[in-house]
Amino acid sequence: MKRTDFHPIFHPRSIAVIGASSDPVKFGGRMFLSAHNRKSSEQVVYPVNPKVNEINGARAYARIQDIDDDIDFAIITVPASHTLEAVQDCIEKGVKAAEILSAGFAETGRPEDAARETEILDLAKRHGLRIIGPNCFGVYSPDSPLTILPGPDYPKSVGALGVMAQSGGFTSNLSGRILEMGLRINKAVSYGNAGDLHEIDFLSYFGENADVSTVAAYVEGVRDGRRFLELVRNVTREKPVIVWKAGLTDQGGRAVASHTASLGGSNHIWEGFFRQTGAIPAVGIDEMVDLIVGFHCLPDFDARRFSAVGGGGAIVVAAADALEKAGLSVLPFSKETRDAIRAYLPPHGNSVKNPVDMGSPMYVPKTFRPILEAVTASSQVDAVIIEQLVFLFRGDFDEDLAETICQARDNSGKPFILVLPQASTGVKGIDIETSRRKYREWYISRSIPVFDSLERAVTVLGKIIRYNAYRTGRTV
Amino acid sequence: MKRTDFHPIFHPRSIAVIGASSDPVKFGGRMFLSAHNRKSSEQVVYPVNPKVNEINGARAYARIQDIDDDIDFAIITVPASHTLEAVQDCIEKGVKAAEILSAGFAETGRPEDAARETEILDLAKRHGLRIIGPNCFGVYSPDSPLTILPGPDYPKSVGALGVMAQSGGFTSNLSGRILEMGLRINKAVSYGNAGDLHEIDFLSYFGENADVSTVAAYVEGVRDGRRFLELVRNVTREKPVIVWKAGLTDQGGRAVASHTASLGGSNHIWEGFFRQTGAIPAVGIDEMVDLIVGFHCLPDFDARRFSAVGGGGAIVVAAADALEKAGLSVLPFSKETRDAIRAYLPPHGNSVKNPVDMGSPMYVPKTFRPILEAVTASSQVDAVIIEQLVFLFRGDFDEDLAETICQARDNSGKPFILVLPQASTGVKGIDIETSRRKYREWYISRSIPVFDSLERAVTVLGKIIRYNAYRTGRTV
Repeated sequence: MKRTDFHPIFHPRSIAVIGASSDPVKFGGRMFLSAHNRKSSEQVVYPVNPKVNEINGARAYARIQDIDDDIDFAIITVPASHTLEAVQDCIEKGVKAAEILSAGFAETGRPEDAARETEILDLAKRHGLRIIGPNCFGVYSPDSPLTILPGPDYPKSVGALGVMAQSGGFTSNLSGRILEMGLRINKAVSYGNAGDLHEIDFLSYFGENADVSTVAAYVEGVRDGRRFLELVRNVTREKPVIVWKAGLTDQGGRAVASHTASLGGSNHIWEGFFRQTGAIPAVGIDEMVDLIVGFHCLPDFDARRFSAVGGGGAIVVAAADALEKAGLSVLPFSKETRDAIRAYLPPHGNSVKNPVDMGSPMYVPKTFRPILEAVTASSQVDAVIIEQLVFLFRGDFDEDLAETICQARDNSGKPFILVLPQASTGVKGIDIETSRRKYREWYISRSIPVFDSLERAVTVLGKIIRYNAYRTGRTV
Repeated sequence: MKRTDFHPIFHPRSIAVIGASSDPVKFGGRMFLSAHNRKSSEQVVYPVNPKVNEINGARAYARIQDIDDDIDFAIITVPASHTLEAVQDCIEKGVKAAEILSAGFAETGRPEDAARETEILDLAKRHGLRIIGPNCFGVYSPDSPLTILPGPDYPKSVGALGVMAQSGGFTSNLSGRILEMGLRINKAVSYGNAGDLHEIDFLSYFGENADVSTVAAYVEGVRDGRRFLELVRNVTREKPVIVWKAGLTDQGGRAVASHTASLGGSNHIWEGFFRQTGAIPAVGIDEMVDLIVGFHCLPDFDARRFSAVGGGGAIVVAAADALEKAGLSVLPFSKETRDAIRAYLPPHGNSVKNPVDMGSPMYVPKTFRPILEAVTASSQVDAVIIEQLVFLFRGDFDEDLAETICQARDNSGKPFILVLPQASTGVKGIDIETSRRKYREWYISRSIPVFDSLERAVTVLGKIIRYNAYRTGRTV
């Protein structure tokens, strides 16, 4: 499938929502209201529902055929038992592509439901109507009216991340977390049972789309393992493909069958897949988010010699441990560097070797600036990892401090990585969490990745280094 | 050392703060003001500072000898160069024990600083004055005036957790996170360079103290490895000892030397330690917190057959995967159980097998209650793990929902585990995080442990199961 084939899906001019409703609790209500709110002046969204005359000020049509306009894309939200009729209507109307949100097909395990899915897909195929789903949450394309369930008010600005997942819930959860951190998405596709368009189509599109720099895929099963492997191997030559392969255990595999009627596959085969393709393995949504942040901020990261900077002995011991376990080094500073740092710290209760223990987590820009200058000036340092505690006595977002760190990065040209632990855990400390999020957004917007813990940071750095070594044919 | 020897430390009647100040930014200011605020009517806290006449309404003394009262415990906050004199004064006054917060001793690596430490410790030892530190943040004993730096307003209610760490920052960070979640601490001790009292003393105390049910230890180095191993082996017969052994890498070991003048030790030796003692290994503060929450809520946990309940297919696939990887099973339900659950769910878009996919993360007590009854009634289920998304459309704390879950646990007598992911990550979504924290505190207060991810939950459950098998002599 060529990229242009996707225009009716990702940038439709005209959209019909079959099963539209004014009730935002219903899928048809959420999807119509979301699309209606998102559309630009050149785009049009038609509600289709035989039981009402208008929804939210827009005239409602009994059938899609009644609309006096060409329809590029249909969103089908009616119950499974009515989808055949809806698809027939779309074909009659000459709709180019449709997403079927409705569940109740092959994933139930009942032969009659699987048969209904096959019937609908065969019909659509014979008439050239492309289908996303069934049993999905749809497509989010920022500069179009299309968004995924539950239909939140996602931004209209376009980013460089491609998200693809059979699971609607995963697509929605991952997208929400990424967007809230200030990152932007190019497209996010949930494709459910993968009845027609599937992983090969979406990954091909992301691979060929020069605006997409990173792909994040949650995979339950694949139609054609060999083809998927070859495609991933091709795409990873140019951009990272992060893959969470779910359902690799026996009981996970059974759950996959109930979820999207997919075959989970064996651990053994998928280990080979990761070895052969350069795809970056992730397990769990936290690791997926971490990797997306890491690749977004530091796509070409390949530094091995770190300075670790923290405000407390245990923190920098942990940093030194975590980095070494990942094969990354924290080399002792020269006397010159130590003396330069020492000049800005109290005589005791800190360490100027490397890692640098500032002694207190209350970093003060006036002294932190020259310390970071000394650290980055060291020829032993290719990258700097800083643990910053947002806590009790310094809960407010301090732009001067953030700017100090950012300038040290800019002036040195060396990559910086920030660790901002969730130091506050209670309701009373929620303002500290607000500040932590402000810092995180601020740093990420300046391409400084932020992680919740040293261990998570180092895991991501290791994976980026391995991917870049794979891509450029070097050994790690 | 017998437990009674510790009374002057953990429950002193009279305390002198040497180097007290009215400036809360200084250690001497924070410690005096904290102790002064915390003291009961039977307890007394004296400021010692030759430069002022009174601090916060309390008469200040030039020297500790000037105080017309016996002194149980001294908090020494003067610079390292003045500690010898302070210790001499304490001896002259007949003080029983002291904590030396000051840094600038063996940890600097300078022979003259190490010599000063030895001189002070030898003097104290000759006169029977017990020392905590130097280079520490002190002791938090909830029902006493004593608290650790940075001197926050910690609760006065006593819990069952013993915390011990050479690192003051770690003691403070861990304690803060645990307390904010609603757990309580029995004692938290930071002991810095471990000049006199050290890991053997504190662990012995926690081991013999029947009010302590769990010990969490951050260890940089130990004085006598053989004795420590034997002591840990003894204590783990009765209560879990969670140990984060830091500084096990070469560069981590170097950082440990700069931090508390300890010897990190080798990975090989410490692997043997964990194998031989039943101590529960943790790496990083997140895992430490998770284990503390897990052991607090489910000390005797030994369930292997789970029901996993979530609102979304990907979530329950991940649960099934994670549990199986930890050797825990999610067995398919009988037809009877499936039918009982099915009665309360829409016809499609969910799964009633096991794991249970509720189809939507918006759990409604009216239907969730009978579903949980059916799940817990299954003879295939020994424990229930529920993923609850606190998110956009249901951001408020819903006590009815929390109560529904808690009642299902109570009625069945089967352990429940909650996973509450950090679904919101931005500043705008902070109210969702507030609700998440309310849920967490609520569940933990009812002995339902809460974790940020399935993977983290399962890691903890696996470690509790292994510990209980070790303790009772069973094989896992």
